[in-house]
Amino acid sequence: MASIARSSLRMRPAMMRAPVARAFATTGARRVSYFPEEPTVPRVVSAIPGPKNKAAVAELDKVFDVRSVNMLTDYSKSHGNYIADLDGNQLLDVYAQIASIPVGYNNPHLKEVATSPEMVSALINRPALGNFPSADWGHILETGLLKAAPKGLNQVFTAMAGSDANETAYKAAFMYYRQRQRGGPQTEFTEEELQSTMRNQGPGSPQLSIMSFKSAFHGRLFGSLSTTRSKPIHKLDIPAFDWPQATFPTLKYPLEEHVQENAQEEKRCLEEVERLIQEFHNPVAAVVVEPIQSEGGDNHASPAFFRGLREITQRHQVLFIVDEVQTGVGATGKFWAHDHWNLPTPPDMVTFSKKAQAAGYYYGNPALRPNKPYRQFNTWMGDPARALIFRGIIEEIERLDLVKNTAATGDYLYAGLQRLAERYPEHLQNLRGQGQGTFIAWDSPRRDEIIAKSKAEGINIGGSGQNAIRLRPMLVFQNHHADLLLERVEKIIQKL
Amino acid sequence: MASIARSSLRMRPAMMRAPVARAFATTGARRVSYFPEEPTVPRVVSAIPGPKNKAAVAELDKVFDVRSVNMLTDYSKSHGNYIADLDGNQLLDVYAQIASIPVGYNNPHLKEVATSPEMVSALINRPALGNFPSADWGHILETGLLKAAPKGLNQVFTAMAGSDANETAYKAAFMYYRQRQRGGPQTEFTEEELQSTMRNQGPGSPQLSIMSFKSAFHGRLFGSLSTTRSKPIHKLDIPAFDWPQATFPTLKYPLEEHVQENAQEEKRCLEEVERLIQEFHNPVAAVVVEPIQSEGGDNHASPAFFRGLREITQRHQVLFIVDEVQTGVGATGKFWAHDHWNLPTPPDMVTFSKKAQAAGYYYGNPALRPNKPYRQFNTWMGDPARALIFRGIIEEIERLDLVKNTAATGDYLYAGLQRLAERYPEHLQNLRGQGQGTFIAWDSPRRDEIIAKSKAEGINIGGSGQNAIRLRPMLVFQNHHADLLLERVEKIIQKL
Repeated sequence: MASIARSSLRMRPAMMRAPVARAFATTGARRVSYFPEEPTVPRVVSAIPGPKNKAAVAELDKVFDVRSVNMLTDYSKSHGNYIADLDGNQLLDVYAQIASIPVGYNNPHLKEVATSPEMVSALINRPALGNFPSADWGHILETGLLKAAPKGLNQVFTAMAGSDANETAYKAAFMYYRQRQRGGPQTEFTEEELQSTMRNQGPGSPQLSIMSFKSAFHGRLFGSLSTTRSKPIHKLDIPAFDWPQATFPTLKYPLEEHVQENAQEEKRCLEEVERLIQEFHNPVAAVVVEPIQSEGGDNHASPAFFRGLREITQRHQVLFIVDEVQTGVGATGKFWAHDHWNLPTPPDMVTFSKKAQAAGYYYGNPALRPNKPYRQFNTWMGDPARALIFRGIIEEIERLDLVKNTAATGDYLYAGLQRLAERYPEHLQNLRGQGQGTFIAWDSPRRDEIIAKSKAEGINIGGSGQNAIRLRPMLVFQNHHADLLLERVEKIIQKL
Repeated sequence: MASIARSSLRMRPAMMRAPVARAFATTGARRVSYFPEEPTVPRVVSAIPGPKNKAAVAELDKVFDVRSVNMLTDYSKSHGNYIADLDGNQLLDVYAQIASIPVGYNNPHLKEVATSPEMVSALINRPALGNFPSADWGHILETGLLKAAPKGLNQVFTAMAGSDANETAYKAAFMYYRQRQRGGPQTEFTEEELQSTMRNQGPGSPQLSIMSFKSAFHGRLFGSLSTTRSKPIHKLDIPAFDWPQATFPTLKYPLEEHVQENAQEEKRCLEEVERLIQEFHNPVAAVVVEPIQSEGGDNHASPAFFRGLREITQRHQVLFIVDEVQTGVGATGKFWAHDHWNLPTPPDMVTFSKKAQAAGYYYGNPALRPNKPYRQFNTWMGDPARALIFRGIIEEIERLDLVKNTAATGDYLYAGLQRLAERYPEHLQNLRGQGQGTFIAWDSPRRDEIIAKSKAEGINIGGSGQNAIRLRPMLVFQNHHADLLLERVEKIIQKL
């Protein structure tokens, strides 16, 4: 972890004051890509979607729901930060598979990992990890995902994706809560508990809750969806648990002009959290929070807010779960976004997925292992093939010092966007993410139009919330990519 | 699907009458393994766990919960039906990673799949499948998991593992149910629905239910766990939905001596299902059932029972979900266990995982696609790397005619176990799974002792329910493996 920690130090970016229009030209010297095969500029040779794409989507539609398909991708022609489609278009990709590609398409080092004997074995001899882990599983963890573990959290439960990473963390929280109520791990379950749980009734299946925040997104399975409060379309028609939601701060931008107001807003939200913990009818076993509400519209809060949350949860013996599924693995300019907070004690659990390409939750307190085996268990408990990929990603992050790169590129990009915002205040509002690597967003009343026009300008970009444009470039996004992005965003705005 | 359908035809096994003791010797001619590298007999060179295993488990314990570890596995030395540990032991594996290895350890064809360019790309360019599927995703589905799709179900939603396969199927059922109540896909959500669902309250988050059966196992996330009714240890301390459970038939064995009684039992259970559908306070959107309750103790019911279930669900417009996570992909001597039932209409959804090495649910009715995009969605929606492995598995099943093999070997093994049961009636009770391939189990009052002693006799075997021994060999399990298993089981019993 040592070298990753080092790489989180932020570098002062050069070129921060280059004017938007000239930025691309003046940064010629920096345009050395990490990947020789990466295109230098986007290539748009057809309408997007083009004819081949349309035909292939119509074919796929027969067996697979394609209404959410953005574009069919030719991954063999995608390199580094550029995604290619079937019609020969190559776009600068600042969406990156919903923020889940860390080190570029067709990364050469990952190619080596993918063809290693260990990988072949993991693919064809898939273990039930809880029962029959491979002899080198401990080594894979130690040299891989545990090397990147958040400070103070030296253990892991591996899962499949973000939703079950969060849900297994919630399960650990519920078991921990009830164990404390019972008086410790040695206390046996009562006969009433054993019987009532088989009927899905208390006390065996207790009416406890996980608190989350309005606009939060934590996944779409039944437990995680009960903590997701992003949009109705994510939740409609699905039964949900009666769990509490607190208000996430709505900060005003620019931050430096609203210091007092924002502090007040965060104080109000923290008071609501505490009140809900004390009063909600289904006792709160844990609070789950994203460092930056991502799906919900790129909503930020200050480090002080999160330290406040940590303090309140600790005081009320409620677990503090940080959902780093979208923010983790370098995108904010630190390996974990909560590294920005200077917490006095680490979160109880930190969940991960997306850019990790593997999933699960980290924890430190040994009491978070349930008191008996097989309470937190399933057949696969993750996928060692994906754990190997995560290890390769960590190696690549270290080799290229990509967290540092992301911090520096993020500052550079943010400065460019600030200049754009000054020039086009009606199209770039509430610019946010300063000092948060490339995890940057802004609001635009004509967001959907901008996104719709971006492909023709060679950019693949995504939105979040009601009217935010969210940037989620890879960790291999460099200043010359930022220049190109700024230039194209300006062009799109000018054509609106 | 044609050749798989053919391979499901059951072959009359030779050797069915060979006496138990002589069987091994007399089947010398049949002892040609599918895999040249597979050992011919188990090799036990240390106590199990041996010294290397113990040391490695102690090391792993520091970062990973090892209390459920059965043995650390040396997959490089595992071949075909034989699993190897760190101490040089090689055991005949009839548990197969909790029923999830289909075509043998280090299967050469899967090795080719694992090193193909398609696989490398799937591993290092992991797509958000709903947004940016690879251009060949439709082809991979058509030549892979859809080729094996249950009759009448030509569409698929891909997931990560059994739990989320079931939960996404449940979600589809809830959306379908509410859509029908609303009067069709064109009816818009009401303002009240849009607002209430953000508070986890009805009508937007309705109090609907999924009915499952007592002793069922459908997974361990919050929705799937609410339908799981196997053991308290799976459920304790985890909040659950107030959903109904019906009684699964308890059949008496041998079946031919209890025809009347068993039919009566199944009738009683079906009546309870119908009563619950009509009366349960949270309306039932779907019934989910395993063809054979696996984790719950290998509980079987007759095809007539399942036809009855199909009839009742259809009459009450309740969806019928068949959970083939453990029974699917050939183990019962047909590709899908529900192929044994002769249903007049297919199930509404069939979920799969384990031996498929990929997961999801099949469906046929286009109305089971939710009426708007992004209602059934998540970032990864499965893993194309695992979809490629499933395709390789299907190819291998076809090439070696493994469903037919499993049907024949199953009959052969069952006959041998019948002879053992006659000889040791106190140790082999309620033998079940006749005509169900190798998906065979029996009860033994000293089950745990038998399992504990099996490794020393070169066998890796598992239990289910309270006192069942469940056989879950791979599809490459052959008569000579059956002979060996019978011989060793007899030896274990004799030493009790």
